[in-house]
Amino acid sequence: MTYQEIMEEARKNVGPYCKACLVCDGRACRNQMPGPGAKGLGEGAIKNYNSWQKITLNMDTITENKPVSTQTEVFGETFEFPIFAAPIGAMKLHYGDKYSDMEYNDILIPACKNAGIAAFTGDGMAPEVMVAATEAIRRNEGFGIPTVKPWDKDTILSKLEQIKESKALAVAMDIDSAGLPFLKNQTPPAGCKSEMELAEIIQSIDKPFIVKGIMTVKGAAKARRAGAKAIVVSNHGGRVLDGCPGTAEVLPEIRAAVGEKVEIFVDGGIRSGGDIFKALALGADAVLIGRPFVTALYGGGSEGVKVLVDKLGEELRDTMMMCGAYSLDEISGDMIRRK
Amino acid sequence: MTYQEIMEEARKNVGPYCKACLVCDGRACRNQMPGPGAKGLGEGAIKNYNSWQKITLNMDTITENKPVSTQTEVFGETFEFPIFAAPIGAMKLHYGDKYSDMEYNDILIPACKNAGIAAFTGDGMAPEVMVAATEAIRRNEGFGIPTVKPWDKDTILSKLEQIKESKALAVAMDIDSAGLPFLKNQTPPAGCKSEMELAEIIQSIDKPFIVKGIMTVKGAAKARRAGAKAIVVSNHGGRVLDGCPGTAEVLPEIRAAVGEKVEIFVDGGIRSGGDIFKALALGADAVLIGRPFVTALYGGGSEGVKVLVDKLGEELRDTMMMCGAYSLDEISGDMIRRK
Amino acid sequence: MTYQEIMEEARKNVGPYCKACLVCDGRACRNQMPGPGAKGLGEGAIKNYNSWQKITLNMDTITENKPVSTQTEVFGETFEFPIFAAPIGAMKLHYGDKYSDMEYNDILIPACKNAGIAAFTGDGMAPEVMVAATEAIRRNEGFGIPTVKPWDKDTILSKLEQIKESKALAVAMDIDSAGLPFLKNQTPPAGCKSEMELAEIIQSIDKPFIVKGIMTVKGAAKARRAGAKAIVVSNHGGRVLDGCPGTAEVLPEIRAAVGEKVEIFVDGGIRSGGDIFKALALGADAVLIGRPFVTALYGGGSEGVKVLVDKLGEELRDTMMMCGAYSLDEISGDMIRRK
Amino acid sequence: MTYQEIMEEARKNVGPYCKACLVCDGRACRNQMPGPGAKGLGEGAIKNYNSWQKITLNMDTITENKPVSTQTEVFGETFEFPIFAAPIGAMKLHYGDKYSDMEYNDILIPACKNAGIAAFTGDGMAPEVMVAATEAIRRNEGFGIPTVKPWDKDTILSKLEQIKESKALAVAMDIDSAGLPFLKNQTPPAGCKSEMELAEIIQSIDKPFIVKGIMTVKGAAKARRAGAKAIVVSNHGGRVLDGCPGTAEVLPEIRAAVGEKVEIFVDGGIRSGGDIFKALALGADAVLIGRPFVTALYGGGSEGVKVLVDKLGEELRDTMMMCGAYSLDEISGDMIRRK
Repeated sequence: MTYQEIMEEARKNVGPYCKACLVCDGRACRNQMPGPGAKGLGEGAIKNYNSWQKITLNMDTITENKPVSTQTEVFGETFEFPIFAAPIGAMKLHYGDKYSDMEYNDILIPACKNAGIAAFTGDGMAPEVMVAATEAIRRNEGFGIPTVKPWDKDTILSKLEQIKESKALAVAMDIDSAGLPFLKNQTPPAGCKSEMELAEIIQSIDKPFIVKGIMTVKGAAKARRAGAKAIVVSNHGGRVLDGCPGTAEVLPEIRAAVGEKVEIFVDGGIRSGGDIFKALALGADAVLIGRPFVTALYGGGSEGVKVLVDKLGEELRDTMMMCGAYSLDEISGDMIRRK
Repeated sequence: MTYQEIMEEARKNVGPYCKACLVCDGRACRNQMPGPGAKGLGEGAIKNYNSWQKITLNMDTITENKPVSTQTEVFGETFEFPIFAAPIGAMKLHYGDKYSDMEYNDILIPACKNAGIAAFTGDGMAPEVMVAATEAIRRNEGFGIPTVKPWDKDTILSKLEQIKESKALAVAMDIDSAGLPFLKNQTPPAGCKSEMELAEIIQSIDKPFIVKGIMTVKGAAKARRAGAKAIVVSNHGGRVLDGCPGTAEVLPEIRAAVGEKVEIFVDGGIRSGGDIFKALALGADAVLIGRPFVTALYGGGSEGVKVLVDKLGEELRDTMMMCGAYSLDEISGDMIRRK
Repeated sequence: MTYQEIMEEARKNVGPYCKACLVCDGRACRNQMPGPGAKGLGEGAIKNYNSWQKITLNMDTITENKPVSTQTEVFGETFEFPIFAAPIGAMKLHYGDKYSDMEYNDILIPACKNAGIAAFTGDGMAPEVMVAATEAIRRNEGFGIPTVKPWDKDTILSKLEQIKESKALAVAMDIDSAGLPFLKNQTPPAGCKSEMELAEIIQSIDKPFIVKGIMTVKGAAKARRAGAKAIVVSNHGGRVLDGCPGTAEVLPEIRAAVGEKVEIFVDGGIRSGGDIFKALALGADAVLIGRPFVTALYGGGSEGVKVLVDKLGEELRDTMMMCGAYSLDEISGDMIRRK
Repeated sequence: MTYQEIMEEARKNVGPYCKACLVCDGRACRNQMPGPGAKGLGEGAIKNYNSWQKITLNMDTITENKPVSTQTEVFGETFEFPIFAAPIGAMKLHYGDKYSDMEYNDILIPACKNAGIAAFTGDGMAPEVMVAATEAIRRNEGFGIPTVKPWDKDTILSKLEQIKESKALAVAMDIDSAGLPFLKNQTPPAGCKSEMELAEIIQSIDKPFIVKGIMTVKGAAKARRAGAKAIVVSNHGGRVLDGCPGTAEVLPEIRAAVGEKVEIFVDGGIRSGGDIFKALALGADAVLIGRPFVTALYGGGSEGVKVLVDKLGEELRDTMMMCGAYSLDEISGDMIRRK
């Protein structure tokens, strides 16, 4: 299957909200929630997408014609590409009846592993979601990163217990979920976590801890002090607060402030290998990509995921070759141009 | 009723000019006057709206999960939200036959009080408008702010007499009304007021005096020297002069110049709790919102006003939580991002 | 007749190219030449128009309520408004069959005089155009400014002879006409004039000499040294060179460079009293307005011209009042806001 | 034939992808490859086009009315205009069945010579393309510049042998071709060249060597050190890497860095004599123009090429006259305005 065929197929399967656009730029779904849209006016996802488009690439091909490696090592594990599938949950609510969260994860995790990358899994109010996700990760030799929502302390600790047994290579918390309309006034309750509460949570589990949903230098510093091994510069695709800047806008200042002490991932509107290259040139170690994994999987199942990852990886390799970077470490700030 | 239902109902009631848009951004009505449009090319209201959209929010949820208060105290009175309904008049001329100015105020004032805020009332050429407005305010324990147009001195002093007896918590003058096409060459005559004339008017009444229609540092300084307790940074929604900057553009420099000596309110294109948050981060103490109160009231009466205020308040609370501000005082300039 | 009625009538009369748009912004006619369009891609007129829209007004109505005067004195003559009708020629070619250049001038000159302003008249290859224009100006007590194209020296000197006898209050040359497609390889030949040639021409006539078509500091200095009493910052409405900046962009630096030694007029996309105010705030002494006079005259004859001038004048007066300027001299740079 | 007629005719001949737009701005073909579109999102060609439009011209016609020369000398040869036809290949793949690469070159080379300029010829996987191109160049007294793709060394050296015998006035290599989708994994293989490999290639032929596809100061320095006599600032019309800046953006800094030591040509979205003027004002010695030569030739054959070159040349001459430059050397940076 070609990527175009996968998207065509996806359009039959993703329910009424997502349009499975060939390039997912946040426009067609805009402010539809439920559905993949963004909060309020719905410009959050569009701003993310646009923030990458404003950056251009410094092509230079007077370089050695030698192989380009897109491999990276994260938390001691080697991946083919600096790409993770982002955590997505409540599949039936947002993407129609085809897959439950459990079914989605059961396809996604091995498909990503097969493609040389790992998937973050989402969390849900129903306890079964995390149970099934961690079991799927265990079945795939720990090749997945469960994401816990910022529930009350007891719920978190009980979920972390399940995660400990999953051999998951790391664990994440999307700290910005407090703003999700769907979690409002639900059980268990979710909300902000202070630096001290976060530190306590991080200390309770002996795995690399990733704090997702950082948009400021101040937030990054708090996550670092609380013991996070990595942060994800993210505004949750515009779904938790209307009016955030695009992630590409804030990434460089966050990297400059935290130095090399934490790994920095980034998500939000990253749709091509060129965008991944820009993210790394701005200081990220890897990227998370969300909605395109949904449509690839709904359109082509496991094969769809492989085709998407190969496409992104090939574009990244191509961009690296055209800009003179042979390994991810060689991607540098002077290879891009910011207005 | 949901806000969407209220707007749908409003569309049946607001007459031919206003389209009761779900998000009132000045586009559909543009340069229609009579009607809610702006003067000249009609871009005044659009510029106001856009000036808030250009500002983004610095989300940070590594914070304590504790209650957020949106309460504020203005002129010794406590309000649930830093929101006032803006003064609007000549209802039949601009919004169709459904309500006279008197009928509108009679619904608006108690509805606002019930929602935890206060309404400014408009002024009209017919003396009955102010008579009825001040009576309605008196019936609602002074929970309203009558607005006097910059008429000739005798007219103003006579209206201030009525206001004194209304227990209104403050009194306002929309000093920029001289530019209203509908007041041109009418009786009583309206026009600019010098700093000295303004001082004389302010001294004639023993209530906090609010000068509305300030767009420059110079104008703010004159209002302050004349004895104003508060100013409203406003260009009258673009209705008095074509080509003004958006109010969000000029607000920060006015706050910087006048310091904390006067209360600063702001209006023009503020349409969400996020916009209110931005206004406070730029230095405002509270905001005025105009047209959305008209459509909410025309679509849902007293309940419509409550739904609107609750919606705005909830959005504000949500934004405060997502940016780490627990009270209005904690909203600071570093919580927003200006290009 | 209202201005709207005049424009509706104009649409029946101005031939196939001009659309008599209510606000003439260069879009509908764009790159149609013959016709009022601009050269090349046709963005010249649009850029002019936009350059005024980018400037905003600093409203301040805490001012004395006293009369505003829009009167100005130019070359010893008093005008009601700082507005001139710009020179336009080849009427049949560009605006259809209704009026010849002679017929147009015969209506325009007295209509402008009646409205309190003066008209520049255009020049043509046919000698009769200048003969008739100067005669019309003489019949109207010199209330007009004939414009000579930069022909060869003999042609110019012969036309200046006619002008001397017309009592015209001044004489102009549109020095940028060399770029007009319609003058290319025609008889008499037109082209650039060196500073020295220009000085010689200026010295040959004892009237204030206006050099029209200045877009640079360098050009303004040359005109001044050659003896020009005034310059017109103009790019001929985009008709002589594709890709010029808007006139509002270059006006302030030209004023800064030449100081008060020459009068500066400006044209290009000025369509409202607010635009005129901005021009004066940027350093102009008066403005020229072109196409709107054509449509006003084609739609309403002499009355159309009066309605247009009154409309522009009223808008200017209104803007002055709202920004605190009582006379043209009081319009200052701090009354506008440039990004 | 007029240029408009030629384009109308071209629309019947250029196959399904190219639309033969009157002004080729990269929009109608966008991301169609095969076809003239750009890679990825297809914005590369659009960005190039827009980068010239952002620059404006400083008109000044108070200048001597003397002849303007557009002649230039490149590599010892005199040309009527600083324009080259850019290398284009795989005609049938991108522009439909009408012409093979050989047939295209056989018309283009003499047509350009006849119009006073020279053509670059493209290269192809089939050896016959270069054989035929060099023969055509020989038949036209060396008035052409063959372009070799960055193949493996043996292929390059064998092609350079053919070129030596062609009397071609120079030879070029489009070093950025490694990114062309059509060359991926083909025989012979093409790819990046290190500075040292490039130096070796350049030394192997005793003709001026032009390195095409430079977008950075660093790349320009490498080309210079490797012995290039000229570089072409180019991103291959957006066809080799998605997300490059427009060429007008990077040209001035490249000129500033390399000084006068190498000739600098530029291509990408240059569509008028005004654009050529801007390129020279930004530091280029000449420009390459691609797609408009294709459509001119498909629509009007040899005559079409002549009409296109005359049109561009006339626009250039016109712009020079209007800005006060009598020869190409007099075109200077202060004749344009960059935001």
